[in-house]
Amino acid sequence: MSGRVTILTGGVGGAKLALGLCHAISASDVTAVVNTGDDFTHLGLAISPDIDTLLYTLAGKSNSTQGWGRANETWTFMEAVRSLGGEDWFALGDGDLALHVIRTQRLRQGHPLSAIIADLADAWHIAARILPMSDNPVATRVLTPDGELDFQHYFVRDRCAPVIRAIRFAGAESARAAPGVVESIRDEQSRAILIAPSNPFLSVDPILAVPSIRQALLETRAPVVAVSPIVAGDAVKGPTAKIMRELGLEVSARTVSRHYGDLIDGILVDERDPPVALDVTAARADTLMKSLEDRVRVARAALELADSLRK
Amino acid sequence: MSGRVTILTGGVGGAKLALGLCHAISASDVTAVVNTGDDFTHLGLAISPDIDTLLYTLAGKSNSTQGWGRANETWTFMEAVRSLGGEDWFALGDGDLALHVIRTQRLRQGHPLSAIIADLADAWHIAARILPMSDNPVATRVLTPDGELDFQHYFVRDRCAPVIRAIRFAGAESARAAPGVVESIRDEQSRAILIAPSNPFLSVDPILAVPSIRQALLETRAPVVAVSPIVAGDAVKGPTAKIMRELGLEVSARTVSRHYGDLIDGILVDERDPPVALDVTAARADTLMKSLEDRVRVARAALELADSLRK
Repeated sequence: MSGRVTILTGGVGGAKLALGLCHAISASDVTAVVNTGDDFTHLGLAISPDIDTLLYTLAGKSNSTQGWGRANETWTFMEAVRSLGGEDWFALGDGDLALHVIRTQRLRQGHPLSAIIADLADAWHIAARILPMSDNPVATRVLTPDGELDFQHYFVRDRCAPVIRAIRFAGAESARAAPGVVESIRDEQSRAILIAPSNPFLSVDPILAVPSIRQALLETRAPVVAVSPIVAGDAVKGPTAKIMRELGLEVSARTVSRHYGDLIDGILVDERDPPVALDVTAARADTLMKSLEDRVRVARAALELADSLRK
Repeated sequence: MSGRVTILTGGVGGAKLALGLCHAISASDVTAVVNTGDDFTHLGLAISPDIDTLLYTLAGKSNSTQGWGRANETWTFMEAVRSLGGEDWFALGDGDLALHVIRTQRLRQGHPLSAIIADLADAWHIAARILPMSDNPVATRVLTPDGELDFQHYFVRDRCAPVIRAIRFAGAESARAAPGVVESIRDEQSRAILIAPSNPFLSVDPILAVPSIRQALLETRAPVVAVSPIVAGDAVKGPTAKIMRELGLEVSARTVSRHYGDLIDGILVDERDPPVALDVTAARADTLMKSLEDRVRVARAALELADSLRK
């Protein structure tokens, strides 16, 4: 067994665990497979919110107070856009724009997203590997009583207020996993595959909707462990619990466990959750990740569970 | 006769006279026809330096200390680009990016530059009309002993250091004047057509290289007056005098006057210049434009000369 670990992750919450993982083991043994279902084009710029959160978090540049974006950000661009009557519902920080402008330029030149992200991560000396789930566009769309919404319209513009009836991932069926994704999940020498405590419906499902990724998870010999995003019977942040209720599901680790079904071998559950019978092996821990120490601790607990599940 | 005045202009120096003109007469009577030979694409963004200088200057947003760009600018984007190993020889301010991002998006959507600039000027409540010389791309290129350079490579990256052997305007031959340009020059009721004290070779010649603009200037019944960029035998700023020397020309208003030849009916010369015989009617004035009062005074002097030349 090598020390290599792959983590499937969305943005903020998942990035915290990825950071913990990079401290729990050697960062160069970490591969993060990141949701791109939130990606969209805004003001003509290609935005990849979850990937950028990973870049900022693993480069030590994230804004820990705000919970998203860069530390030491300025907002002169947005003020100018507003003065020109431009769309201002999606906040683009001045420093953040550098990622979007460079990404947009290189995509237009024909570079795949994965190659662009690898170069950006290199420039910031990030030892972990950050892989988009796919170089093909996949767009998360939310069906509400008032019709279908683009993900960012639902998530940012409408602040998750609309009721969700269903979610789909346009383009996922025909999307190929980005280079390295399937290989890292299937890697026989891997220590573990982790599913981060990101929103299962909005952040992890787009990754699982890429057929070759789902297949690799079903077939890998490495133990697959999910970290439940439910803490003390509620979601730490974001619309996870709200969506579970809207979809008629119990807000619990059991729902998360059943949602992932036979893709996972175990689940790490928050110790404050009421004990319930699960279909997979569970371990319990304090899964709230406020400090870096918390993040490392949760990563270690997930790895311990994975180690206990080796086939 | 109406009060309408058209000014052909490059960036900084020309924008000063355009601003003076907007105070000397009603701003809504002013049409600025602006050089786009300096326009280029950088980091995938469409940049129009001279047009933006006009926008900033006429909207009261220009940085008067620096001489270019916006007041109250921040530079977080450039720092981030640098940290990512991106090109940093052309400084793009955070607020400045708003113009470039919006312009790039709308150009890609198929809008002509002139329509985009009109909307931006409207958003900033600019009463004067700002017209790009053409909606077709025209690229100023500089022939140096080491080969041909893109304008911005010569002007910004290499700080005008290379010796100029020749200048050409790629695309000008087939460029059409933007909507309104020829009409405003040919307008029988116009009070005057002014040529700003911009660099004749780099900033005004690209405009004159558009065939329909040159023809309109030759045929208009309105008096055409150039303001000489030579003050006390030298250029106020920029490479005008250096280029004149490199092209083997005397650094003087006479060179400027001969350069414009039969396109102009008169020239406003700085009172500090040595008196020389000119082929066109000349008036003398203090043409140095430090304060707003200076700018208004020079605009008035140019208009007075034009009024005296009416055919």
